[in-house]
Amino acid sequence: MHIRVIRPVIDTTLTPAVTDEVEHWAAPGTTVDVVSLLSGTASIESEYDEALAGPGIVQRVEEAAVDGVDGVFITCFADPGVHAAREIIDAPVVGGFEPSFLTAMSLGDRVGVVTILPNVVPMLRSLTRRYGLDSRLGSIRVVDMPVLGLTDREELIDRLAAQASAAVQNGEADSVVLGCTGMLGVTSAVRDRLHGKGIHVPVVDPTASAITWLESSVRLGLTPSRTTYMTPPVKARKR
Amino acid sequence: MHIRVIRPVIDTTLTPAVTDEVEHWAAPGTTVDVVSLLSGTASIESEYDEALAGPGIVQRVEEAAVDGVDGVFITCFADPGVHAAREIIDAPVVGGFEPSFLTAMSLGDRVGVVTILPNVVPMLRSLTRRYGLDSRLGSIRVVDMPVLGLTDREELIDRLAAQASAAVQNGEADSVVLGCTGMLGVTSAVRDRLHGKGIHVPVVDPTASAITWLESSVRLGLTPSRTTYMTPPVKARKR
Amino acid sequence: MHIRVIRPVIDTTLTPAVTDEVEHWAAPGTTVDVVSLLSGTASIESEYDEALAGPGIVQRVEEAAVDGVDGVFITCFADPGVHAAREIIDAPVVGGFEPSFLTAMSLGDRVGVVTILPNVVPMLRSLTRRYGLDSRLGSIRVVDMPVLGLTDREELIDRLAAQASAAVQNGEADSVVLGCTGMLGVTSAVRDRLHGKGIHVPVVDPTASAITWLESSVRLGLTPSRTTYMTPPVKARKR
Amino acid sequence: MHIRVIRPVIDTTLTPAVTDEVEHWAAPGTTVDVVSLLSGTASIESEYDEALAGPGIVQRVEEAAVDGVDGVFITCFADPGVHAAREIIDAPVVGGFEPSFLTAMSLGDRVGVVTILPNVVPMLRSLTRRYGLDSRLGSIRVVDMPVLGLTDREELIDRLAAQASAAVQNGEADSVVLGCTGMLGVTSAVRDRLHGKGIHVPVVDPTASAITWLESSVRLGLTPSRTTYMTPPVKARKR
Amino acid sequence: MHIRVIRPVIDTTLTPAVTDEVEHWAAPGTTVDVVSLLSGTASIESEYDEALAGPGIVQRVEEAAVDGVDGVFITCFADPGVHAAREIIDAPVVGGFEPSFLTAMSLGDRVGVVTILPNVVPMLRSLTRRYGLDSRLGSIRVVDMPVLGLTDREELIDRLAAQASAAVQNGEADSVVLGCTGMLGVTSAVRDRLHGKGIHVPVVDPTASAITWLESSVRLGLTPSRTTYMTPPVKARKR
Amino acid sequence: MHIRVIRPVIDTTLTPAVTDEVEHWAAPGTTVDVVSLLSGTASIESEYDEALAGPGIVQRVEEAAVDGVDGVFITCFADPGVHAAREIIDAPVVGGFEPSFLTAMSLGDRVGVVTILPNVVPMLRSLTRRYGLDSRLGSIRVVDMPVLGLTDREELIDRLAAQASAAVQNGEADSVVLGCTGMLGVTSAVRDRLHGKGIHVPVVDPTASAITWLESSVRLGLTPSRTTYMTPPVKARKR
Repeated sequence: MHIRVIRPVIDTTLTPAVTDEVEHWAAPGTTVDVVSLLSGTASIESEYDEALAGPGIVQRVEEAAVDGVDGVFITCFADPGVHAAREIIDAPVVGGFEPSFLTAMSLGDRVGVVTILPNVVPMLRSLTRRYGLDSRLGSIRVVDMPVLGLTDREELIDRLAAQASAAVQNGEADSVVLGCTGMLGVTSAVRDRLHGKGIHVPVVDPTASAITWLESSVRLGLTPSRTTYMTPPVKARKR
Repeated sequence: MHIRVIRPVIDTTLTPAVTDEVEHWAAPGTTVDVVSLLSGTASIESEYDEALAGPGIVQRVEEAAVDGVDGVFITCFADPGVHAAREIIDAPVVGGFEPSFLTAMSLGDRVGVVTILPNVVPMLRSLTRRYGLDSRLGSIRVVDMPVLGLTDREELIDRLAAQASAAVQNGEADSVVLGCTGMLGVTSAVRDRLHGKGIHVPVVDPTASAITWLESSVRLGLTPSRTTYMTPPVKARKR
Repeated sequence: MHIRVIRPVIDTTLTPAVTDEVEHWAAPGTTVDVVSLLSGTASIESEYDEALAGPGIVQRVEEAAVDGVDGVFITCFADPGVHAAREIIDAPVVGGFEPSFLTAMSLGDRVGVVTILPNVVPMLRSLTRRYGLDSRLGSIRVVDMPVLGLTDREELIDRLAAQASAAVQNGEADSVVLGCTGMLGVTSAVRDRLHGKGIHVPVVDPTASAITWLESSVRLGLTPSRTTYMTPPVKARKR
Repeated sequence: MHIRVIRPVIDTTLTPAVTDEVEHWAAPGTTVDVVSLLSGTASIESEYDEALAGPGIVQRVEEAAVDGVDGVFITCFADPGVHAAREIIDAPVVGGFEPSFLTAMSLGDRVGVVTILPNVVPMLRSLTRRYGLDSRLGSIRVVDMPVLGLTDREELIDRLAAQASAAVQNGEADSVVLGCTGMLGVTSAVRDRLHGKGIHVPVVDPTASAITWLESSVRLGLTPSRTTYMTPPVKARKR
Repeated sequence: MHIRVIRPVIDTTLTPAVTDEVEHWAAPGTTVDVVSLLSGTASIESEYDEALAGPGIVQRVEEAAVDGVDGVFITCFADPGVHAAREIIDAPVVGGFEPSFLTAMSLGDRVGVVTILPNVVPMLRSLTRRYGLDSRLGSIRVVDMPVLGLTDREELIDRLAAQASAAVQNGEADSVVLGCTGMLGVTSAVRDRLHGKGIHVPVVDPTASAITWLESSVRLGLTPSRTTYMTPPVKARKR
Repeated sequence: MHIRVIRPVIDTTLTPAVTDEVEHWAAPGTTVDVVSLLSGTASIESEYDEALAGPGIVQRVEEAAVDGVDGVFITCFADPGVHAAREIIDAPVVGGFEPSFLTAMSLGDRVGVVTILPNVVPMLRSLTRRYGLDSRLGSIRVVDMPVLGLTDREELIDRLAAQASAAVQNGEADSVVLGCTGMLGVTSAVRDRLHGKGIHVPVVDPTASAITWLESSVRLGLTPSRTTYMTPPVKARKR
């Protein structure tokens, strides 16, 4: 199985770390490759960033279709370009939000998200309503660190554990979702911190759950619905 | 008052017709100018088209901000780039969906939309949920004509009247919204057709309602909320 | 354009102030006249007051229909008599709630209302559900001043600014709606106070938004849906 | 126990029939008296009628409070004046909608209403949303007979049975509520008709369920919440 | 009228107290008998307990059907076995949740529940969503006492009054429902405590409201819908 | 990885077929064993059947906990005992509904379910509301064959294809979920039939998606939330 991981940003410095992470989670027999965008932004922290990333993402999806990959993971929790991508490739496509949030729903009642900055909270709230999942959303909290600052791993773990604990103790969360695919390799540490405080709730990693979600979808032979994601009509397009 | 109309497409052939239409609806004292995109697609009929239009739209919004316009209308019923735009300009911004749908809600219970192609129906249903308006949506019907085929005005009126009548008679609509900003100058004809059949429901034009919505917002001194639409953080961006 | 403003109360002392305010907001070319009721209550602060105002309101609407006005504004945030009025006049009719709340939705995610007394909060919550807008309601707060005490303008501004600030800072509101049409001429002062605290959210005035809403509806040629607002059957009626 | 039945209309011809009906359903030991209004309309079939009935209803509720009755039934399915009444009397108050709809919910999943005229359907849909019950509403159908024409009992039973059957067979209803308190003494006949067709669903009578609801509420010592239904402030009121 | 009360537990020590309570609330002419289960658990405080109680409950319902009882009350606030029971008996069946919650809805806007332990809160939240009543749920609080510890009546009243007061004062409740049928004979004391603090909200007793609900349903001739609660197909079953 | 498959029925004749199916879908390295119940019913087609299966299911889950399995699949689309199971084992537990429905949501907008008999439709509708997923449910259709009659594979495929086609063509479904875990080994045939008619929508198999869901959850280190699924308190229990 071949999964194409599309980082919807122009940054390449984190590509090795992302590659390590997705390879860590991939099953034996799954091949993963990771690409960034040729145009777009260094990170996605606004609707504006998402708008700028659009053409770069669909270009990478078109390449993935030509390459005949089996699944596509667009590594951003805001699911940028995911719905466009499903229109143009006969393979399952996910971002970070759907697989982690839906997985979390099968483990606890209220899903609490801990994301990066206040800036993206309204985007995630809109996404939750778009998906019809708002009755299961507990709260969205932030660690108040930008995507490109997440490399301070200890600080990140501290803040995630603090926010996740607060969410659970305030009755806002029964399952916790890490709300940024740039939070790499910290999930088990956060879970351990919570356990140390006597808090036993699942902590769902968006990258890890995206990889296993795609693998499952491929094994199940599933591809996007063509009544929801109809093939775009032919017309003049200029990039 | 100065309103910038951004056609989120690369097409320029319809620009004169759009200009006539917005000037027709604008109040005395309102200046309107109309621009198309430098990159994007000939029309927006898919999530894919929306993704390709992103950078072109925000470029035009950035210019509008520099030009100090008072309001921005992005002429597409799917509201492409609207939320990104609100992050980067201190002036009201609307697409076609919000002003027409919200206006229709003040006139009848269930809002029925008649749009172009089946392709865009899932996008509009998602948008309705995103905005939390699904309990007021009656149905979304189509005339089954592409955006660039809407210039056959008589055919368009026939089909709009047929679908709108059916929606009302089936109990799907109490107010009708024309679901494409490319449906230019047909609203009163559709309304007359419905009246001729004894159907007395409002027919809301997305272009006309967007113009008056912006004029009202400007007169009321309203600009986008900076807790929902926070200014995007500074970072590397490449177009 | 001729707009009839119906104050749904027997009070006449505030009529000059209301008249000034609506004339202030009306566009050039819009004629506005203001009437109070012959029977009803001094102010509307309960369902009981609304029930008593019913006949007085519909009488004024019937007169407006005879006078051939173009639009009707019933100046109360609880929208009393609005739905009855739409059944008996072929012109747009609004109260204070719908135009301000719907306008606020186009500027920010969660709408926060600041109204007068705890007494009316349940009425407004019911109204929000009736209109299917509850997923966008942030919170309803009160200044704890009765309608007829709102004339202490400085105190009103202080309290509105305090409640609005608290709502925004607690994550209850991205747009603020002043929840009483008796809060006259304070909107820009409240907005300035918020700006002074670094809070940049729109503040929507119910009176001002009602006037511009009606003007827009008239320009768009819109009248109430006769499938939602059917003409009442002929029968014995005694006032 | 003393229950005051307020017919929210000026009609008195049907008062004996209503009296017979409520006495039929009342428990031993319950005293029932029935009053019409001094002002209002002959029947309630529009928001307009409701608005005209307001003062007449609250007058009768005030008398009921003075008389120290134990419960108040306002005999109309649209629950006119019910919420106003709860503000001014320390006794349970219901119309026809709440007790019958809530009772029906405990017997089947989707509640189907069969009411009189298309005119009132939007009112009932609004009421369902106001009460937060829309996820349980199946459909609202009509017999297309005005309130004052319901005295043709055989025709009424025929049409009710036809509409109720259609609703169940179309998957719109698991429990049927008769949607007008003027549909007197026909419930068991309708149920028998449905049984004769092999349709075994409960048929809930709004008058009967209102009486038993009030009796239960009184026995349980329940009165309206004063945080929802606060006592109206003192002020000038003119009828 | 003959009502069978099924205690869905193996405990028998509280049966006399339950019998006293239900006889206290039953109308003259209503015969009540109370049975416990032959298999199950000592109390219901988890989904696990509910699962273990299933066969014991349906056995008692089958006996009730053979005995020709007129109504069945399964005395647990989580409504265990209620929906199964409705499939196999032509008589109204309720647990504690539905009658008390629906009754509370007719008296105030937001319903606040005060139950026993944190363990059951997710079950009750799920039940509220299952019934489509979540828009009316204020909050669910706990006294933090297990079912079998509720016999310390004074402590129970203290904690109920404290939690109910807090819920009302925090704007979480307009009507209070006692969320465990093991809270016997304390409702009026709790109400008095609230009144003593100036809090005038209804307090609904699940046992009392279940008894009067069933009596009303029987008087109204209502039995479960056979489109929702179809008779189970014949098949091999082994207990 | 060791997955325990619990058939929540006393039937054993289909156990080999279920075993073949789950082994077919399991990944290399996953060990699967399948058990039926010692008490319960031959199939689950009612709330009554579910109630009878409760103790048998939890017994098997307790054994699974003792055996230290990594995941538990309760093979029924109605998710019987799933929530009880999560309280008593530190391993992921699913039935058929959650993994297939949530998977289907990532592939298309409206999820259409095709299940066995009309009897279970209300159960599934309740489950959808319980999970807060009703805004994404398109429709629930039936093949009208009992669980134990599903062995007529050709007839089953015919009927599934017919109902699925109708659902898609009527706009009720964009993704199709087979609504019974007894529909074994027919998914790809149904998908082929739909493709043959030009209908390109995903068809999700509940058994297959449950197996891959559990494998993913185990790989992600996820176990049930202990704030939603608290450990049941110690008490007397009798089976």
